[in-house]
Amino acid sequence: MAQEQNKRGRILSGMRPTGKLHLGNLEGALKQWVELQDEYECFFEIADWHALTTAWQDTRELRAFVRDLAIDWLSAGIDPERSVIFVQSRVPEHAELHLLFSMFVPVPWLERNPTYKDWLEELGPAAATYGLLGYPVLQAADILIYKADTVPVGKDQLPHLELTREIARRFNYLYGKLFPEPQAKLTEFALVPGIDGRKMSKTYNNHILMSEVAKEVERKIKRMYTDPQKVRKGDPGHPDTCPVFMLHRIYNAAETEEIAPECRSGRLGCVPCKANLITKLNAALEV
Amino acid sequence: MAQEQNKRGRILSGMRPTGKLHLGNLEGALKQWVELQDEYECFFEIADWHALTTAWQDTRELRAFVRDLAIDWLSAGIDPERSVIFVQSRVPEHAELHLLFSMFVPVPWLERNPTYKDWLEELGPAAATYGLLGYPVLQAADILIYKADTVPVGKDQLPHLELTREIARRFNYLYGKLFPEPQAKLTEFALVPGIDGRKMSKTYNNHILMSEVAKEVERKIKRMYTDPQKVRKGDPGHPDTCPVFMLHRIYNAAETEEIAPECRSGRLGCVPCKANLITKLNAALEV
Repeated sequence: MAQEQNKRGRILSGMRPTGKLHLGNLEGALKQWVELQDEYECFFEIADWHALTTAWQDTRELRAFVRDLAIDWLSAGIDPERSVIFVQSRVPEHAELHLLFSMFVPVPWLERNPTYKDWLEELGPAAATYGLLGYPVLQAADILIYKADTVPVGKDQLPHLELTREIARRFNYLYGKLFPEPQAKLTEFALVPGIDGRKMSKTYNNHILMSEVAKEVERKIKRMYTDPQKVRKGDPGHPDTCPVFMLHRIYNAAETEEIAPECRSGRLGCVPCKANLITKLNAALEV
Repeated sequence: MAQEQNKRGRILSGMRPTGKLHLGNLEGALKQWVELQDEYECFFEIADWHALTTAWQDTRELRAFVRDLAIDWLSAGIDPERSVIFVQSRVPEHAELHLLFSMFVPVPWLERNPTYKDWLEELGPAAATYGLLGYPVLQAADILIYKADTVPVGKDQLPHLELTREIARRFNYLYGKLFPEPQAKLTEFALVPGIDGRKMSKTYNNHILMSEVAKEVERKIKRMYTDPQKVRKGDPGHPDTCPVFMLHRIYNAAETEEIAPECRSGRLGCVPCKANLITKLNAALEV
């Protein structure tokens, strides 16, 4: 395709299907992906095999989760006319390349992986399965099979990408140059607070889904944690540390310069401030 | 196929393509396989992915080795009209099932594998690759994917088969009963001596190939190690410890009752004894 030739490179990125996405996922990754479609040839993977590395004991919902993830991606603006969206397990070549890479990847490379160590600490030593130990090998196969040269990652993902580069280097050295060494494209994003003020996460059950119905968004924002020093409307607020204001920054950016002084002065109470956010957030999620 | 219904069960067995087969391979496995075809539905795998677990650094000859192995099998009497012969890497489902099994196989199950420990001792710690650690997972996939219920093995292979059974049990427990727990069919075979009197092995370079030309068989048997106490024709021999006599037992069984006393008495010299073996062995390999 001629139009593709102006693109800068090829991206592979993916998510594990673990249920419907929330605003943290949307702001943390998905919005960047939507923009990357203009600049790059994009491959977006629904990484259902990766989901099994930690969730192998109960797979009953996996099929539904794959579908949910695809719907959330489409609704966020991932465009199947411009980007390739695919389900990992439907492409058996990922499993084949993973197996081939496994032959020359030293076990210590994998044991050193900080995420593996973290998981064992969190889930206990019984979580140390062969697949969990080797998931960076599968990830390397995911990236290299498409000869992706760019991978959007958060800082915590950098060690995995370094391992992918090492695997590409070793393969190229052993069998002849075939794979590019993919480069990281560091993504920075607004931290999205959950309704209890902590980082939004399903683990904390403090999340708002991308697919949340309007009524439910209203209910959740209404009971949302606010500045504990602002008890009554007249009390002065502290917008810079208020999670409701953080959501205004994301979903109502145009009004934040107006809201902040109104809150600080005590002229704006939390109830109308939240009502305003509910309207804006529901409008944003409607798209 | 109606004729299959009288068969006792289904067998999966395989060999790594590592070059042409020698008489040790023929006597140690292949002859049993040929007989098993009468009793069982047989699947014989050319395990080229397994060959990579230890031979990943140089793969240039692998394709030729796959071909050599198939030729040796056919020449020994593995019959593609009655048995399934296949190349592992041509069936990507092996890689997929291996990946799925990997998710629930604990790393300690694999670290305990005595063969893995032996290999590390022999090849050094740098041989500890992810693929070598996990080859019993791939082996389990090889066996279970065909729902084989019987696996012909030597004693040293029993721990691997036990691991296959554990994997089948764990899968069946987690996701519903799907795989049979395959049983071992212990094979016993004559130890084949190499031309230096040690066990026949390519490592010792003391082997006679199944595909050896007659002249080469003659050359090798002529320089074969014999009873060191029998220097001249008249000296009494000790057939029970003579490797030439061990080969007579395999390839000239009908005459052994005659040869033994002749050798012991000193009436039979090593030169005619070897000449006789050369004729019989070449006739056997001719088939």
